[in-house]
Amino acid sequence: MNSNSFGTAFCLTTFGESHGPAIGGVIDGCPAGILLDKSLIENELSRRKSGQNNAMSMRKEPDVVEFLSGLFEGKTTGTPIAFLIRNKDAKSSDYENIKDVFRPSHADYTYQMKYGIRDYAGGGRGSARTLLPCVVAGAIAKQILASQGIEIQSDVIQIGEERSKSFSKDEIERILSRYREEKDTVGAVVQGIVKNTPVGLGEPAFQKFHAVLAQAMMTINAAKGFEIGEGFNAAGMRGSECNDEFTLDGKQIRTKTNHSGGVQGGITNGEDIVFKVAFKPIPSVMYPQQTVDIQGNATTIEIQGRHDVCVVPRVVPMVEAMAAMVTLDFILLKKCNKI
Amino acid sequence: MNSNSFGTAFCLTTFGESHGPAIGGVIDGCPAGILLDKSLIENELSRRKSGQNNAMSMRKEPDVVEFLSGLFEGKTTGTPIAFLIRNKDAKSSDYENIKDVFRPSHADYTYQMKYGIRDYAGGGRGSARTLLPCVVAGAIAKQILASQGIEIQSDVIQIGEERSKSFSKDEIERILSRYREEKDTVGAVVQGIVKNTPVGLGEPAFQKFHAVLAQAMMTINAAKGFEIGEGFNAAGMRGSECNDEFTLDGKQIRTKTNHSGGVQGGITNGEDIVFKVAFKPIPSVMYPQQTVDIQGNATTIEIQGRHDVCVVPRVVPMVEAMAAMVTLDFILLKKCNKI
Amino acid sequence: MNSNSFGTAFCLTTFGESHGPAIGGVIDGCPAGILLDKSLIENELSRRKSGQNNAMSMRKEPDVVEFLSGLFEGKTTGTPIAFLIRNKDAKSSDYENIKDVFRPSHADYTYQMKYGIRDYAGGGRGSARTLLPCVVAGAIAKQILASQGIEIQSDVIQIGEERSKSFSKDEIERILSRYREEKDTVGAVVQGIVKNTPVGLGEPAFQKFHAVLAQAMMTINAAKGFEIGEGFNAAGMRGSECNDEFTLDGKQIRTKTNHSGGVQGGITNGEDIVFKVAFKPIPSVMYPQQTVDIQGNATTIEIQGRHDVCVVPRVVPMVEAMAAMVTLDFILLKKCNKI
Amino acid sequence: MNSNSFGTAFCLTTFGESHGPAIGGVIDGCPAGILLDKSLIENELSRRKSGQNNAMSMRKEPDVVEFLSGLFEGKTTGTPIAFLIRNKDAKSSDYENIKDVFRPSHADYTYQMKYGIRDYAGGGRGSARTLLPCVVAGAIAKQILASQGIEIQSDVIQIGEERSKSFSKDEIERILSRYREEKDTVGAVVQGIVKNTPVGLGEPAFQKFHAVLAQAMMTINAAKGFEIGEGFNAAGMRGSECNDEFTLDGKQIRTKTNHSGGVQGGITNGEDIVFKVAFKPIPSVMYPQQTVDIQGNATTIEIQGRHDVCVVPRVVPMVEAMAAMVTLDFILLKKCNKI
Repeated sequence: MNSNSFGTAFCLTTFGESHGPAIGGVIDGCPAGILLDKSLIENELSRRKSGQNNAMSMRKEPDVVEFLSGLFEGKTTGTPIAFLIRNKDAKSSDYENIKDVFRPSHADYTYQMKYGIRDYAGGGRGSARTLLPCVVAGAIAKQILASQGIEIQSDVIQIGEERSKSFSKDEIERILSRYREEKDTVGAVVQGIVKNTPVGLGEPAFQKFHAVLAQAMMTINAAKGFEIGEGFNAAGMRGSECNDEFTLDGKQIRTKTNHSGGVQGGITNGEDIVFKVAFKPIPSVMYPQQTVDIQGNATTIEIQGRHDVCVVPRVVPMVEAMAAMVTLDFILLKKCNKI
Repeated sequence: MNSNSFGTAFCLTTFGESHGPAIGGVIDGCPAGILLDKSLIENELSRRKSGQNNAMSMRKEPDVVEFLSGLFEGKTTGTPIAFLIRNKDAKSSDYENIKDVFRPSHADYTYQMKYGIRDYAGGGRGSARTLLPCVVAGAIAKQILASQGIEIQSDVIQIGEERSKSFSKDEIERILSRYREEKDTVGAVVQGIVKNTPVGLGEPAFQKFHAVLAQAMMTINAAKGFEIGEGFNAAGMRGSECNDEFTLDGKQIRTKTNHSGGVQGGITNGEDIVFKVAFKPIPSVMYPQQTVDIQGNATTIEIQGRHDVCVVPRVVPMVEAMAAMVTLDFILLKKCNKI
Repeated sequence: MNSNSFGTAFCLTTFGESHGPAIGGVIDGCPAGILLDKSLIENELSRRKSGQNNAMSMRKEPDVVEFLSGLFEGKTTGTPIAFLIRNKDAKSSDYENIKDVFRPSHADYTYQMKYGIRDYAGGGRGSARTLLPCVVAGAIAKQILASQGIEIQSDVIQIGEERSKSFSKDEIERILSRYREEKDTVGAVVQGIVKNTPVGLGEPAFQKFHAVLAQAMMTINAAKGFEIGEGFNAAGMRGSECNDEFTLDGKQIRTKTNHSGGVQGGITNGEDIVFKVAFKPIPSVMYPQQTVDIQGNATTIEIQGRHDVCVVPRVVPMVEAMAAMVTLDFILLKKCNKI
Repeated sequence: MNSNSFGTAFCLTTFGESHGPAIGGVIDGCPAGILLDKSLIENELSRRKSGQNNAMSMRKEPDVVEFLSGLFEGKTTGTPIAFLIRNKDAKSSDYENIKDVFRPSHADYTYQMKYGIRDYAGGGRGSARTLLPCVVAGAIAKQILASQGIEIQSDVIQIGEERSKSFSKDEIERILSRYREEKDTVGAVVQGIVKNTPVGLGEPAFQKFHAVLAQAMMTINAAKGFEIGEGFNAAGMRGSECNDEFTLDGKQIRTKTNHSGGVQGGITNGEDIVFKVAFKPIPSVMYPQQTVDIQGNATTIEIQGRHDVCVVPRVVPMVEAMAAMVTLDFILLKKCNKI
């Protein structure tokens, strides 16, 4: 069942709670002989921390990755790459007040009901911090993809009601500071693009490229929507508008438009893979909310602690990481299509 | 890898091409001792054919399901339930002109590039007809869910630029006839609701309820977008608007609103699971399009044959079927959470 | 969970009961572009029927394979290859007397207890007939392996207390006729050899070549033991006897001996893969046995019907088929070891 | 593909090399709410070190398990349980001489050929030390099984040519010292028994109880043979000797004999599950052997370092651990057989 594993040929298993001893992961199936550039991994992790000054969670974690296996003289050996990140700045006392009270729109209630027990500190396994191992594995995947000429790019294109082709860091901070002052939070949309993929990635039926990508994106905390190509916009279009006619670019078969978002029949066609992910506002608003406690009594909760106002900009490297893992996985799987 | 299998505890493997001898499936893990009502299966299949008069594909298939295994005196035995549906009204000659020419926004080109060979007749494995086995398996899942009090409902809420809480059959036909006259096609949005699920379905991390549901929906032909709860709308909301406060309904813990769409932290909270799926226009428009042939020459194609104007209403039972399989699967998996 | 599927990259899902409408399978992941020689498949199926005159089960099934999907103009397309074999000569009335009484050392009792229901006719899903789909998939795998220069060979090396390097068909018949006259049955050992495999098949840890091969062999009805290389004999040896020293054959690295049976650390070393499988006597002896009925009363049973005296020679192509599937699967998986 | 994961509902992923920073594992699917007794885990690990005085490897590792996740106030939470064991006493210099030379009957050559790179120190991923995570996971599984009344027992029944119903610790040491003096090594057979399992564990077709058990046992380093019940002995028996007739023990259905080893049709029948595993001699003999180096030149090697004479007694807790994981996994999976 392995609900904490993702991927087939390049498979990441994650573990860890927000305030437990450590979070980390095991990558099974990383190709052998790759010289890993650890600075690229550190870069991705620090992108995820960037902007953490005011707008972002005030938790100060060094987030140093320790590799435990699978590397020899800096190169991947084909055996599992395990790594961990210690949780150091965990102030569990901040969470004593949520021990017995369910925070609205968090995972407290559902975990408690499902398992009959939960590590409530910092949101436990439900915390967005548990996604860090994906950033690490994604950074490794990105490096391998780059060696194949494949790049992943992403942009924040909506925050609350404001839209842009790509918000700059300063613009993001300006918008978020407004919500922060009002002790409120806000949602956002991130667009991702995978460039230069070969034709033929993705499998028919249930492992279509965009179906697995959708699953990947919807596993990111707070994700509520996914689109490939025109997405929901396509519902309002006619075939005559939405079809991507084929054309020749020299000897190369291309499409004149890319309404499909780079995927036809679940298989990449060589065009940019363009997708969007919608995120809800972070549920940790800083004023009292009605809720229920673990004994089933109505009560109110006022969330304390250190919280972001919005998933962006921190979620951006997560989106890229998941896209990188999906793309690399399908590149490896494609090798089995022919003998 | 099993890209043609879906589900973990209740797992469907599908096979078949549009114009091959048959399509069908094998269900592995159907609980034992269930008395199957085959008329419910026939009902779902005929719903999928409904409206096939004018608006719909003119292919006339009886679509009779033959069960090959896994049933004894009408009851499931716990062994694999295999079934097939013969392809009878296959006019492959209609497809001779697409043998060497790639239809825009179909899967012809990507299959050809991926495998170096394809069964072009009727779109082969890429045809929407290959989803029929999901309708059969979904009908079985629905029956088991019904025994647990769980229902699945769905509505067409958008066709092209027209929106409604739920379009009636006649309204759908009225809208589609307009596009048919113009030899064009159109997209649509379907909303699905799973009612009365227990709390605790879905697994954390990568098998979140809505992540697997997203994958399931995005495997349906022409699907381009998925939303759970507020979906993309959530990106424009504040936490103060979007959070679902808890309340008591007698002894029962409920949420006052359902912006989350019944899932928190990837696990069901007992509220209605509400999701939307966007579909692009069917790419088989009835006028010439620019394209490229298998030798890499620019050409035009004018698609012949029998084609729908829109995925609705025929896709509706597919949406329900996939939702039913996902829900039943998680119900079975939940049994393993505690010893 | 998919307990009816076997293999990862080349994956067979089987279905069917002995006296149900049909048995069959779905192969997911067969490489595209292979021209299938159906006569090779028929050959394997008829090998499995060979000797069925006196010594063997008297059931007369034509065992014609019908392919339903995954082939186009005789070639594999990369999509699932589904096939079925109709059950025609099923005399379920022969099995009325086992409806309520558990045959000793058959699967009647365990199926009934596990599922609360069972298709008792002909042993249902527990019948050796349900292995036929493996013979079909194995024949396809063999053909692909042959194109890579890989051959699989097998020999009957023990029947009851008699041993040989390889019993001939006549010798087998002579031995078995003795047991048949005594209305008794007898066990046997089959040796398999996979020749010309490349170095590097098999995965470390839990998917070692011989571990997966062991699983494959132990899924064959009546299998009770598995050995790779020296097997149990190795327990009585010293390192100085059992080690396989390396040597050079021209430029080629070889081992001087092959006590390992072609596998070191779970990975093939290029030498012959040599394994043995022990089978118990067929439990359908033709005289009264003590047993218990479904109501829990002590009783006796005298098995009627058509039964073999020994799993050999019919099991031999099964052993080869499973070995072929395992080998092909690892050849495909190996493609993912490096980018 | 996940070749470093084992199990379905209770799934262990392992990582680590013999002389890398650490070895460890992640258990996904451990039921929630279990109060773990860590002393039981330490006991199993120290059993694995027992006898390490003379006969055993002289490596002195404290083997302290650090748990990183999945536990809250001592109880399992249903989230992944990650743990690691630091490698402290790693003298990699001992292994400089095997850097470029392949040790006969070790995994050096096959790893090098498969991946083009290997961590040679201490045998890297091929070292028996990498099985320690299985002992940890097995100890957890044992504790859960014990709560269900299920026990696992094992005995050394053969060392070289000597056989016994169960060798005592002193007898083992006496036998091994003889081989140690001769700078040679020796093989062994271990018998395992799982007692008090419910009827109905194991799945038909490819996940038969004993097939998965065989796979599990064959993944243990040096394993070369597996038997369930009579094993290879069954090949020499008649049906009239080998069948297990049913009888009544009060209201309880039992078999009069247990030649089947507790499994019929791949499903447990409630009798003791009795199996045997044969191990080859440890290949690290202490005198010169002919071999080949990484450049393909013939050479000789004289293995240095710290090595056991025989896999027993240290492998015994490994056998139990793998059996415990298999049994617990099937207990969890059985919950899905009925709704």
